[in-house]
Amino acid sequence: MRIGILTAGGDCPGINATIRGVCKTAINHYGMEVIGIHSGFQGLLTKDVEQFTEKSLSGLLNLGGTMLGTSREKPFKKGGIMTDVDKPSLIMQNVKEMGLDCVVCVGGNGTQKTAAKFADLGLNIVSIPKTIDNDIWGTDISFGFDSAVSIATDAIDRLHSTASSHKRVMVIEVMGHKAGWIALYSGMAGGGDVILVPEIPYSMKKVGETILERLRKGKPYSIVVVAEGIQTDGHKRAAEYIAQEIEYETGIETRETVLGYIQRGGSPTPSDRNIATRMGGHATELIANGQFGRMIALKGDDIVSIPLGEVAGKLKLVNEEHDLVVQGRRMGICFG
Amino acid sequence: MRIGILTAGGDCPGINATIRGVCKTAINHYGMEVIGIHSGFQGLLTKDVEQFTEKSLSGLLNLGGTMLGTSREKPFKKGGIMTDVDKPSLIMQNVKEMGLDCVVCVGGNGTQKTAAKFADLGLNIVSIPKTIDNDIWGTDISFGFDSAVSIATDAIDRLHSTASSHKRVMVIEVMGHKAGWIALYSGMAGGGDVILVPEIPYSMKKVGETILERLRKGKPYSIVVVAEGIQTDGHKRAAEYIAQEIEYETGIETRETVLGYIQRGGSPTPSDRNIATRMGGHATELIANGQFGRMIALKGDDIVSIPLGEVAGKLKLVNEEHDLVVQGRRMGICFG
Amino acid sequence: MRIGILTAGGDCPGINATIRGVCKTAINHYGMEVIGIHSGFQGLLTKDVEQFTEKSLSGLLNLGGTMLGTSREKPFKKGGIMTDVDKPSLIMQNVKEMGLDCVVCVGGNGTQKTAAKFADLGLNIVSIPKTIDNDIWGTDISFGFDSAVSIATDAIDRLHSTASSHKRVMVIEVMGHKAGWIALYSGMAGGGDVILVPEIPYSMKKVGETILERLRKGKPYSIVVVAEGIQTDGHKRAAEYIAQEIEYETGIETRETVLGYIQRGGSPTPSDRNIATRMGGHATELIANGQFGRMIALKGDDIVSIPLGEVAGKLKLVNEEHDLVVQGRRMGICFG
Amino acid sequence: MRIGILTAGGDCPGINATIRGVCKTAINHYGMEVIGIHSGFQGLLTKDVEQFTEKSLSGLLNLGGTMLGTSREKPFKKGGIMTDVDKPSLIMQNVKEMGLDCVVCVGGNGTQKTAAKFADLGLNIVSIPKTIDNDIWGTDISFGFDSAVSIATDAIDRLHSTASSHKRVMVIEVMGHKAGWIALYSGMAGGGDVILVPEIPYSMKKVGETILERLRKGKPYSIVVVAEGIQTDGHKRAAEYIAQEIEYETGIETRETVLGYIQRGGSPTPSDRNIATRMGGHATELIANGQFGRMIALKGDDIVSIPLGEVAGKLKLVNEEHDLVVQGRRMGICFG
Repeated sequence: MRIGILTAGGDCPGINATIRGVCKTAINHYGMEVIGIHSGFQGLLTKDVEQFTEKSLSGLLNLGGTMLGTSREKPFKKGGIMTDVDKPSLIMQNVKEMGLDCVVCVGGNGTQKTAAKFADLGLNIVSIPKTIDNDIWGTDISFGFDSAVSIATDAIDRLHSTASSHKRVMVIEVMGHKAGWIALYSGMAGGGDVILVPEIPYSMKKVGETILERLRKGKPYSIVVVAEGIQTDGHKRAAEYIAQEIEYETGIETRETVLGYIQRGGSPTPSDRNIATRMGGHATELIANGQFGRMIALKGDDIVSIPLGEVAGKLKLVNEEHDLVVQGRRMGICFG
Repeated sequence: MRIGILTAGGDCPGINATIRGVCKTAINHYGMEVIGIHSGFQGLLTKDVEQFTEKSLSGLLNLGGTMLGTSREKPFKKGGIMTDVDKPSLIMQNVKEMGLDCVVCVGGNGTQKTAAKFADLGLNIVSIPKTIDNDIWGTDISFGFDSAVSIATDAIDRLHSTASSHKRVMVIEVMGHKAGWIALYSGMAGGGDVILVPEIPYSMKKVGETILERLRKGKPYSIVVVAEGIQTDGHKRAAEYIAQEIEYETGIETRETVLGYIQRGGSPTPSDRNIATRMGGHATELIANGQFGRMIALKGDDIVSIPLGEVAGKLKLVNEEHDLVVQGRRMGICFG
Repeated sequence: MRIGILTAGGDCPGINATIRGVCKTAINHYGMEVIGIHSGFQGLLTKDVEQFTEKSLSGLLNLGGTMLGTSREKPFKKGGIMTDVDKPSLIMQNVKEMGLDCVVCVGGNGTQKTAAKFADLGLNIVSIPKTIDNDIWGTDISFGFDSAVSIATDAIDRLHSTASSHKRVMVIEVMGHKAGWIALYSGMAGGGDVILVPEIPYSMKKVGETILERLRKGKPYSIVVVAEGIQTDGHKRAAEYIAQEIEYETGIETRETVLGYIQRGGSPTPSDRNIATRMGGHATELIANGQFGRMIALKGDDIVSIPLGEVAGKLKLVNEEHDLVVQGRRMGICFG
Repeated sequence: MRIGILTAGGDCPGINATIRGVCKTAINHYGMEVIGIHSGFQGLLTKDVEQFTEKSLSGLLNLGGTMLGTSREKPFKKGGIMTDVDKPSLIMQNVKEMGLDCVVCVGGNGTQKTAAKFADLGLNIVSIPKTIDNDIWGTDISFGFDSAVSIATDAIDRLHSTASSHKRVMVIEVMGHKAGWIALYSGMAGGGDVILVPEIPYSMKKVGETILERLRKGKPYSIVVVAEGIQTDGHKRAAEYIAQEIEYETGIETRETVLGYIQRGGSPTPSDRNIATRMGGHATELIANGQFGRMIALKGDDIVSIPLGEVAGKLKLVNEEHDLVVQGRRMGICFG
């Protein structure tokens, strides 16, 4: 068999580890040939590919980014390159010409949708979920998430010393447009006093009251962790908006930090490396078994797979019954 | 209500986080009083205790070690302090005198056994599992494990550069007397070529062959990760024994490193902090509900509890069907 | 003897280590009494102090922030607290009433100025330089700088993977209003392709040309490190301004990150801990020798001291002859 | 011009950074050709080389190890490969045949000696000092040292939590056969209570007394940092010997850790990267100026060079007047 692999969407720690997992399993165990496709779906349009050998995979396990490159090319949407051709047909044709028996797509929510459409067109496709946001429906955890939480928690740890030395409120904005998982996990792990996520409406009154209550208890500093996607006045970044509102509500000097792209980069945590490796191996097993049109997923500690059609278009979101929210509230943390 | 909390057994990242989880939940949510008991069960013998306030818990979340101290005192066994008294009776009496409605024990396998015996004597007791070895039966994960894996993986990452620069075999010994979880997880995350755990018998022939096969493929270096508890000649440490045998089998220069106590110390990973916090909170909830004689556990992503009688005396071990072993073998990693 | 110690100005890794260095040397070696003054010069106005014992210093060496707290109170300027009193006189009187034979001030450029003025008023004062910006005149290195460079370099390392995976330009803004030391050191250590500091005028044409030249050489991504204090259009933050200009000049997708307060917090590097410890010890030695009105400084690898009057009002700035600039240019790095 | 570069001796963080510094400066600034020589001096015997391009240098700055590989081949000594030829003559001839105008040697004390001998034979040679031990005479700092101290300090930080939780003495052995620099710097930065280096004779009585004095002051735990090269009974490793002696002297439970090879590997600290880069650039400048037979060195913050003949055969050692020793003693740290 001859399989192709591509990585699409935003950067995420663990992509290289999952590429390695797919390729080592395919080459070493199943005797497959593996073709690396460059720059996501764009490489399927331009046939920008390379043949993998075991040597190509050296040093890949703990390397951030993706050695295949990525792009935001969405072949079923307008925009991108080759705007005058029927991209899905061209890709179907190219896959045939390159002799690929299956394509492995590593990507986020958008990629799962694209993969589902190609599966409907009859392409043999298996996808691996990848996102620092952990918002892909159907898998308990996506690799990249633990690494992002780790970087964000490290940053929050650092802000504590400045907050307490200066008796200030420090607001930190972490990634998460629609899903607040990074804010929730890093906020709890970093000892945040207020944690705001897009899924839980908040009241600035309550936020201010939490901070003032801490002041009354002799703690004249607070850490506020916010996801970038929380509701604001529509003009300012989440961190800036919340910092201004807190100063207004409490009169306490407040500073903001936007963590930004450093959440996406660098070496994956051991936990992410192992999930990425296992997902890569199971994707290859699916292919060997002729099971296509499916996304790999983690359920409890088991690697399973689900039909791409079930995944596409859904999001996994935080809700107020999540144990970390419930437990946080018991400890006096304000979620809004 | 008035509850006591003690921490027993070896050091483990996350103990302070779980103390904080118990205390903040107890004080803030349930309005309980919390008494910190020093030096494990020894403090129940000597009544060496302190009253906790919210202030006591400041800065505790990311701090390694245990602010309560620990000891290896086993009140149902010979040895330790006060060898001439009936220790279990004295402890039962002291608990009564101090007015404790329940005792929370944070500890490893030995502590679960002791806790089960006290439960049988009628003590209201709730226990929280804690071990870097991840070998406590009944819980998917114990806090401390992710931190230990993280430290070990970081060390393996470092050895790679020396191994490849010098074309050497590097053997690293990680903790795990009976259970090879740290070796398995860090070995897979660190890109080990050979991973030896106590639960899977190994043949030095196969180990040597794996290393020589790599040499033939142009990789004149290898990383070997061994758990301290693997079978040796009975005289040498695991790392030393394996290093000598590898030199004998392959003729390649081989060096060993014993990671030792640094696996136990320092700040817990975010994942361990969150598990520790949640377990602490749920222990307190159990007490509030009058459910005693139980150990907190993680099942999938849920915090549950199981009767102490079920846990005591069992071990959770690696087996050859574990997905990381299966996946490792597919990629050509030698498990013996 | 009885000495006081205060910490003023912004947060900086190593302050606690230098407090520990002063106090352990004073108490253990010279038999002095040490009084900790809270919240910088504000504590000298309000007599908000504590007596130090060796126990107070436990766990302090690697702790970020300052256990004494800090404030921006400048007793010779308008603003701050007690606006209706003659603050310098009140402080002179309070120092006398508290029986302090000398005050140790740990602070940045502003603090050195204040200390010089108090020295002129006849106060026995010794100061220790502290700044992540490394811009205090008279000392080769201030503690805090190596830690800030370390955090910034770690962030730049992370951006590399995203930049190369996405074929993007990543702009990162680090601290440095007037002095570009953090940008220079972290930019060189992180492999920046363009490094902009306030001291060296830049041309956007040259910046754009550097990035386009890399594109032509097959490197369609670049890392741009900018100090916050570089010249912009006067409205936008440095990172935002430069990112927009680069997109305009090159047409390549460009993203910005502002590192912010996390550069100030957390545990100091070993190098900063040792400098902080040594400076603390030498400050105490100066006091024991009756040498007042001086700032501790590092010259080569020697700890020396210089008159406060020489330091005040000067800044240590990057210049184009600095070896890192010269060497960077040789390697093709654009400094503007 | 056409220059060769080789890396010899033990692994050390920063070698790749200095290779990059040499090559980028040579290719980009001076228009030289650069030949990478594999496996140290062995590659000069076997002509195992590669031509460098700017592309070869991608991702090298923060990578541990050496991309050129290394060996312990000493062409002026017995042993190694090609035992039946006159190795120095063969190397002189090979250098000529390969058309190398100069050879850059990156190495430790042994390499400096070898380089000096080749300089005497008339080879154009420039050397760059490299050692985690920091014991090369003539340079204030060698790159690799800061990284090793950083890893060792991180380990000591971790041991603190276990030591204090268990009320134990923890002994940690760090590298340093003849020179105790790593023990001194990491011991001071990690808050060691006893620091033993090969250069300062120690008395176990004093060591024990220091630990017992801490016990009396309510600190029933201590951290002891020892260099591997301190005097022992001649049979045991330093850590094991000292741990046994401490138990004997104090009766306190004592545990040992040998840090080992992880001190040598992994990504260099920013400080080491910058020193390595600068040294690489200056080596190339020397060559361009026709100055051969010299070793690059750091003096204060200046990069200089000294004749190889002055360096060879000397060692830079700790002495009791070193400021960190003096300051440590003032704070009550026992150096023996």
